[in-house]
Amino acid sequence: MGDSEPVAASSRPVTLFTGQWADLPLETLAAKTADWGFDGLELACWGDHFEVDKALGEEGYVRALRERLDHHGLACHALGAHLVGQAVCDPIDLRHRSILPPEVWGDGEPAGVRARAAERMKDTARAAARLGVTQVNGFTGSPVWHLLYSFPPNDPDEVERGYARVAEAWSPILDVFDAEGVRFGLEVHPTEIAYDFVTTRKTLAAFGRRPAFGINLDPSHFAHQFLDAAQFALEFDDRIYHVHIKDSKRRLDGRRSILASHLAFGEEARGWDFVSPGHGDVDFEQLIRALNRIGYTGPLSIEWEDSGMDREYGARDALAFIRRTDFPASQVAFENAMRRE
Amino acid sequence: MGDSEPVAASSRPVTLFTGQWADLPLETLAAKTADWGFDGLELACWGDHFEVDKALGEEGYVRALRERLDHHGLACHALGAHLVGQAVCDPIDLRHRSILPPEVWGDGEPAGVRARAAERMKDTARAAARLGVTQVNGFTGSPVWHLLYSFPPNDPDEVERGYARVAEAWSPILDVFDAEGVRFGLEVHPTEIAYDFVTTRKTLAAFGRRPAFGINLDPSHFAHQFLDAAQFALEFDDRIYHVHIKDSKRRLDGRRSILASHLAFGEEARGWDFVSPGHGDVDFEQLIRALNRIGYTGPLSIEWEDSGMDREYGARDALAFIRRTDFPASQVAFENAMRRE
Amino acid sequence: MGDSEPVAASSRPVTLFTGQWADLPLETLAAKTADWGFDGLELACWGDHFEVDKALGEEGYVRALRERLDHHGLACHALGAHLVGQAVCDPIDLRHRSILPPEVWGDGEPAGVRARAAERMKDTARAAARLGVTQVNGFTGSPVWHLLYSFPPNDPDEVERGYARVAEAWSPILDVFDAEGVRFGLEVHPTEIAYDFVTTRKTLAAFGRRPAFGINLDPSHFAHQFLDAAQFALEFDDRIYHVHIKDSKRRLDGRRSILASHLAFGEEARGWDFVSPGHGDVDFEQLIRALNRIGYTGPLSIEWEDSGMDREYGARDALAFIRRTDFPASQVAFENAMRRE
Amino acid sequence: MGDSEPVAASSRPVTLFTGQWADLPLETLAAKTADWGFDGLELACWGDHFEVDKALGEEGYVRALRERLDHHGLACHALGAHLVGQAVCDPIDLRHRSILPPEVWGDGEPAGVRARAAERMKDTARAAARLGVTQVNGFTGSPVWHLLYSFPPNDPDEVERGYARVAEAWSPILDVFDAEGVRFGLEVHPTEIAYDFVTTRKTLAAFGRRPAFGINLDPSHFAHQFLDAAQFALEFDDRIYHVHIKDSKRRLDGRRSILASHLAFGEEARGWDFVSPGHGDVDFEQLIRALNRIGYTGPLSIEWEDSGMDREYGARDALAFIRRTDFPASQVAFENAMRRE
Amino acid sequence: MGDSEPVAASSRPVTLFTGQWADLPLETLAAKTADWGFDGLELACWGDHFEVDKALGEEGYVRALRERLDHHGLACHALGAHLVGQAVCDPIDLRHRSILPPEVWGDGEPAGVRARAAERMKDTARAAARLGVTQVNGFTGSPVWHLLYSFPPNDPDEVERGYARVAEAWSPILDVFDAEGVRFGLEVHPTEIAYDFVTTRKTLAAFGRRPAFGINLDPSHFAHQFLDAAQFALEFDDRIYHVHIKDSKRRLDGRRSILASHLAFGEEARGWDFVSPGHGDVDFEQLIRALNRIGYTGPLSIEWEDSGMDREYGARDALAFIRRTDFPASQVAFENAMRRE
Amino acid sequence: MGDSEPVAASSRPVTLFTGQWADLPLETLAAKTADWGFDGLELACWGDHFEVDKALGEEGYVRALRERLDHHGLACHALGAHLVGQAVCDPIDLRHRSILPPEVWGDGEPAGVRARAAERMKDTARAAARLGVTQVNGFTGSPVWHLLYSFPPNDPDEVERGYARVAEAWSPILDVFDAEGVRFGLEVHPTEIAYDFVTTRKTLAAFGRRPAFGINLDPSHFAHQFLDAAQFALEFDDRIYHVHIKDSKRRLDGRRSILASHLAFGEEARGWDFVSPGHGDVDFEQLIRALNRIGYTGPLSIEWEDSGMDREYGARDALAFIRRTDFPASQVAFENAMRRE
Repeated sequence: MGDSEPVAASSRPVTLFTGQWADLPLETLAAKTADWGFDGLELACWGDHFEVDKALGEEGYVRALRERLDHHGLACHALGAHLVGQAVCDPIDLRHRSILPPEVWGDGEPAGVRARAAERMKDTARAAARLGVTQVNGFTGSPVWHLLYSFPPNDPDEVERGYARVAEAWSPILDVFDAEGVRFGLEVHPTEIAYDFVTTRKTLAAFGRRPAFGINLDPSHFAHQFLDAAQFALEFDDRIYHVHIKDSKRRLDGRRSILASHLAFGEEARGWDFVSPGHGDVDFEQLIRALNRIGYTGPLSIEWEDSGMDREYGARDALAFIRRTDFPASQVAFENAMRRE
Repeated sequence: MGDSEPVAASSRPVTLFTGQWADLPLETLAAKTADWGFDGLELACWGDHFEVDKALGEEGYVRALRERLDHHGLACHALGAHLVGQAVCDPIDLRHRSILPPEVWGDGEPAGVRARAAERMKDTARAAARLGVTQVNGFTGSPVWHLLYSFPPNDPDEVERGYARVAEAWSPILDVFDAEGVRFGLEVHPTEIAYDFVTTRKTLAAFGRRPAFGINLDPSHFAHQFLDAAQFALEFDDRIYHVHIKDSKRRLDGRRSILASHLAFGEEARGWDFVSPGHGDVDFEQLIRALNRIGYTGPLSIEWEDSGMDREYGARDALAFIRRTDFPASQVAFENAMRRE
Repeated sequence: MGDSEPVAASSRPVTLFTGQWADLPLETLAAKTADWGFDGLELACWGDHFEVDKALGEEGYVRALRERLDHHGLACHALGAHLVGQAVCDPIDLRHRSILPPEVWGDGEPAGVRARAAERMKDTARAAARLGVTQVNGFTGSPVWHLLYSFPPNDPDEVERGYARVAEAWSPILDVFDAEGVRFGLEVHPTEIAYDFVTTRKTLAAFGRRPAFGINLDPSHFAHQFLDAAQFALEFDDRIYHVHIKDSKRRLDGRRSILASHLAFGEEARGWDFVSPGHGDVDFEQLIRALNRIGYTGPLSIEWEDSGMDREYGARDALAFIRRTDFPASQVAFENAMRRE
Repeated sequence: MGDSEPVAASSRPVTLFTGQWADLPLETLAAKTADWGFDGLELACWGDHFEVDKALGEEGYVRALRERLDHHGLACHALGAHLVGQAVCDPIDLRHRSILPPEVWGDGEPAGVRARAAERMKDTARAAARLGVTQVNGFTGSPVWHLLYSFPPNDPDEVERGYARVAEAWSPILDVFDAEGVRFGLEVHPTEIAYDFVTTRKTLAAFGRRPAFGINLDPSHFAHQFLDAAQFALEFDDRIYHVHIKDSKRRLDGRRSILASHLAFGEEARGWDFVSPGHGDVDFEQLIRALNRIGYTGPLSIEWEDSGMDREYGARDALAFIRRTDFPASQVAFENAMRRE
Repeated sequence: MGDSEPVAASSRPVTLFTGQWADLPLETLAAKTADWGFDGLELACWGDHFEVDKALGEEGYVRALRERLDHHGLACHALGAHLVGQAVCDPIDLRHRSILPPEVWGDGEPAGVRARAAERMKDTARAAARLGVTQVNGFTGSPVWHLLYSFPPNDPDEVERGYARVAEAWSPILDVFDAEGVRFGLEVHPTEIAYDFVTTRKTLAAFGRRPAFGINLDPSHFAHQFLDAAQFALEFDDRIYHVHIKDSKRRLDGRRSILASHLAFGEEARGWDFVSPGHGDVDFEQLIRALNRIGYTGPLSIEWEDSGMDREYGARDALAFIRRTDFPASQVAFENAMRRE
Repeated sequence: MGDSEPVAASSRPVTLFTGQWADLPLETLAAKTADWGFDGLELACWGDHFEVDKALGEEGYVRALRERLDHHGLACHALGAHLVGQAVCDPIDLRHRSILPPEVWGDGEPAGVRARAAERMKDTARAAARLGVTQVNGFTGSPVWHLLYSFPPNDPDEVERGYARVAEAWSPILDVFDAEGVRFGLEVHPTEIAYDFVTTRKTLAAFGRRPAFGINLDPSHFAHQFLDAAQFALEFDDRIYHVHIKDSKRRLDGRRSILASHLAFGEEARGWDFVSPGHGDVDFEQLIRALNRIGYTGPLSIEWEDSGMDREYGARDALAFIRRTDFPASQVAFENAMRRE
């Protein structure tokens, strides 16, 4: 009967992004995730999970952190710096106060906030390098997101200028990334400058496709836009630096809007919602095939969010799901397959 | 490799409805189901599984039964009294003789059969109370089911009167349920007074929504009607007293009718058929989410019926299916989920 | 700009079934339908449209009727005798009183009603012959329709016996049809002995496929069963004696049942309803292709019923629809078509 | 061959909304639309189509306008005041300058702009009354639209307060509407406070469902949200004051986002776009049935916008489409329909 | 009621391809098509429709032909030279004898047949030029078509060499086309070297995208391959030289193969078949939009083939269909459309 | 938590077809497959897996092979003789050299190759009998496959003659099969004489339905043709002699052709491809139900081919998949199921 278990041969490390668990101290979370069988953590740069200022300014912080992870047998392949990154290009308002460290928020004057956020992102690259991590994921913010379906109509040129402004603001940051040997992975996501195929093409072009700027591919942001994450991986193959495993589900019945009615996640009347991986509309089979095809060998990092499922149950369920879904690429040359039939 | 097993954390007890196993003595069935890993039994009031007359009239019957279940570590959360209940409001004919105890059938004179069936249902509530069970599931029968798609056309008023007649016949029975602290759960089902959203609304209204009359939600009866069981749970949230896990599958190819051609179950040419849970059209994922949302904590009772699968294999397959499909609700407040993203 | 009108070259006569217009005197209806452009009428044997007793018993009735139709340029290819036919095999109850002539209903004693209905059907064949019409459409009634999805479960043998009983009751009637040179066309329809592929096969077999018993194909009764009317025409090609043009539409949204909730036609909450031809789910294009393939050259008779549309508007809309949908078969041998490409 | 034309019996007046034709003088447009066969115009309050200030301040303006319309045989059932209305509740920025009259824009200081826009809306009601028009359609603006899918996450309370703020700003305006005997019809539309079922429920509630505030139902804004316009009409039946005939089409292929990539209308890479009525995803058949069911007898006003079709061709095509799609409701009581079958 | 006719404003000339009518003398066909309202003919180079040898060798042939067309008011925008073209690159066998002129077939020795066919194609360009026609459509033949889904497996290199061989064989022919100012339009089609997106890309590349070699876009060959003809037009926009209006329909029911079972057209059991335009799966609306977008202003040439419809009825039906489906592009700049809303 | 494993109760032996593993010596492969849990091997008659000439001519070869399999606990229910069988009826060309043993290929003269292939197939039956195996699967080749969608059009009679020619060539071979008590199972497959319902009907008829000629049902060849493998099993129930478990997936997006563009397997731009069982479009649930219904008790033989997955991982994954998908038929009479509900 043992043969009937799904075969587990996940070819890539599976990590947990700690952003949704910032209420738990890192030690608690590390113990849990190790026990559940994760291979590592993608540390969020908030809560006490990874503190950029301490990493740069506090003697022994980095070493202690590394030892803590080693103790639990957990690797760290990437950091998540979404919150501060968001402030670099956003029009700043009170919403940002709740997600920024006080010293970045300061007096809340927008230009100052943006400038301090940019500096903190440079520090994040430096801190990552100290930890021996070469991948930082995050958000860029967007000067134009709020103009989505605008009335009065937008000046199309203003939208185009948004890409340039993001490139301008981030280029000095990326210079530091280059200097430190670290790469940035934008999580392509509504609310960001790039959130689909069209906007990703424009964004990469605005950066002159410099290697320091790549993508953290998270398919949950594509499914509710009716986008094909596997095709995305194939088109932007040389810029897929990191992959999130997260899922979303459309719940359209003629009364729920795909725009989600300004409702919070978890509300029954939304037209879509995030769900635990494997419970939604993302076609992970095709995504894995695409990742195999482009030769992606990095981590599959579970970002767990599901308003209708117990969080700890879900983390384990997601891990089991991805272990049985991820499979290794063929070692046989394609063209020989048929000759043998 | 152990990590790849689906995570099992079924949050609700899983029971087996014994109605389809009445050919097996209770002892045999109890031993099997305990061995397979079920948490309990929903005892059918036929065969030797639960005998209402003995429960009320035979010294020690109830205690012996309880001990037998305890011996196998099996709970009993509900009784199933479909057969006798059906006779309370049906136009009686020879078909009923095969499903009724001889003393209820008597001489088969319709009014007498109905009256005796009603009395037996009162006794069933009393017997349930003696066993310490507060939930009795079953059928009501229907004075109008046979008028489905009628020609000559129905008098619409006659259909409406059907709801009133059911309420009239069952109210005295429910008075006994109330007195005994037991609730009735109608299995919403074609052939019954309530079989979909519209008829359930009318039926509950006819009873003035008295708490004694609720629903045993069985999604297998909805899928072939193209009804959404999860939405049903949400709409009738305060009346979902018990849940069956059963499945059905549509097999429409332009030549098989959704009305099933008066063919028996298992015939290839039917447009739909019952199948083992997880093998059909019921969206159990969404049903579980709905049950989580409404706070249903009662049993998931597998009613197993599949003309194309071995029964004992199927019972175990169904148990494994529901164990890996049922998951606990979130303990985190919805509105905080995003703040952490 | 004239070229842009749909080409009208209906190859078959288009008639109107008068059953839904029995509130209008025949003269009024004939004038209207002639004005609208119909080619003829399928006269209902109720109201004053076609009165069987007068046709057989009243001097000059038939000649006057024929002259009236001629006056309006209207042909008559078939009669509709659904109401009396229904009583031949049905379990009789009060619903039948409203559809039967008083002299057929008599005292309402079931066996007598059925016997008188059978005699009236024989007379209908005789009256049709006097009018020079060789096709009578109608219902047979059914001894088993009310057993659809039955609980307590049916004895399957009882259902099978239903086909035999219908054949037994109708064979003497069909002997008169044969003697008069008239054929009967059962409108395959839920509530009748044959309502889909399976039951039509069994019914035709029960009659030994005698030519007197054929089919009035009405696709509106198939669409809500998910049946393919074109395939039906192909399978029963030699028994397609007459064709109704009528449509139905499914309105399934997870809350409306395909079984229609015992609601009257026109109710919003029904899962399907009849609609004016071309406004529903029937694929008339494929039906026309099938009729072309089997060489059907008889009338396309519009049976108009739509609770949401003005009746007179609808009749004209339906006529225009079928005129532009019906097209003639190819006169070129199939196998030569490609050779010329 | 004449019979094959679609039957035209549009039961409601068909008008053209002049907003997309503001580059044409009213006289030119009136002559064209009359020639094409329209029954009237829904006059936009911009260009020279309907000038609120002249209507109130210029002797004879209203009479001359009325004579001009009469000369062409055109009725006017409603005004369109979208541009100024938008400024009442929007956060004001430079985009608004291009859509507002200079005297409303003034110095562009947001609070002042909003106040002047509110006064102009009161004047619009007064001017409508002078013209004898009792319906003004338009936008409200929205204090929260730009928070759609926000990161950092919104405070849900802030969204809820948006509805209250709109009600607060518009209530004094609606008092004038009431005084003048004119009703406002919000075009439910992304960018506005109400754009789907959920937000319309909240908006109507915020106004205490006062009769002065109703809906201009435009189905083109629903199709790309996957909303069912017919169900919308049924749910908000007593608030459907006016109906636009406009269409949109989804063009999803896994690479185009339903969010439209911040691209202008007409761009190939958008996931949806507006199209001429009948060329898109709106189910006008069901919409007409719903309007028949709720007894809506007002105009069907074509708002024509399609970046891929010649405008004048399109206006005529749309008129022909709606003439053949609009059909009158049944005059026969529903319950009798079957009795005659 | 006149308003309800579909608006006809076909912006492009509509012609009939005469290939399927070669059994009719040109005079007969020209008279019919002019009467039906066609704007011109795409003359097939077989039957007596256009005789290449006479055009080059017979004094006055071309002038007489031109006068004949003028007499009927018919234009000629293109020739169809499919039959001879097919022989240029095909492996030759007996099937070719039935489609080739005797002098091209000769003794049937393959290399000779191919050489003579190539010469005849050069003559076709010369003859077209004499007639004043600059577009010749046709087939190329294919050295590899018969290797479709091959077992034993193909050597992939052999397939790739097929493209080169076609380019090699056709380049001298195209040199004559260039010299004569005529362009060739390959009808992309299974059985040819290019039949879908992939093979068209390779074929155009093999010709170095020389302008003499373009495409006759016929969407009927795409629908049964599940290809999107509109996207094809957009991708190969600068090579769409001519457009056929032809349709096909998939008839998949689980028993009919998309590969069509080696059955002739018109057989019921095929999984797809050609049908009259507008009766199949081609999305002509989207195709017209794509042609508008790329600025195609050439003819829409109906190639009529439908084994289930009368040919002459069908030609008129197809003409009416395309007249009401073809619509002119917008004359308004895209970006202004919204500003006016 | 152990209960949540899928229940494994595969009722049929699961074997691996060794054809795709011919690069591995039998001993290596046998050790691996035994270790993975397979029940047996379907030995390919190429590589060193099963050598027909040695089996007939080499003392002890068969015994040694049998002992080797026994040593690993592996059964052998069937041989696979696809390569040589293909040459019996194919038009022979160079492609065949790569798949044939040198002594069968000989000088490559077609008639001689076909004759030698036929003799080798007779020997294969004799060799199978020596091994105690009564089932040989394989291909027949086809004289007409290359005429699929032919232009110039085929003579339909030539296609029909193809069936006769296959029957003629194979009948002497089957006589040997009969003599040896061995049956042949054609793998119904494009490239063969039978590849769908229509061609299988014709093929079986051409053989007079002699029992020696049956079917090796492989559903992967049906899914990309849109054929229903379960219905195939039901229609040809008495000729289903062996079953392959293999899967294929359609990847249609409007740009990829279902005809696969002459691309090799594994190319991204193909419209379909083979995938590991359970990863594609085959509905194995329905196939298992059909096999249960027809009483098939033979092996389920995994033919593994997936260009995007590691081969050894895939073999284990496929075994686990089929173990949990295959389930035993019901032992309860169908008609009793409901009586107990």
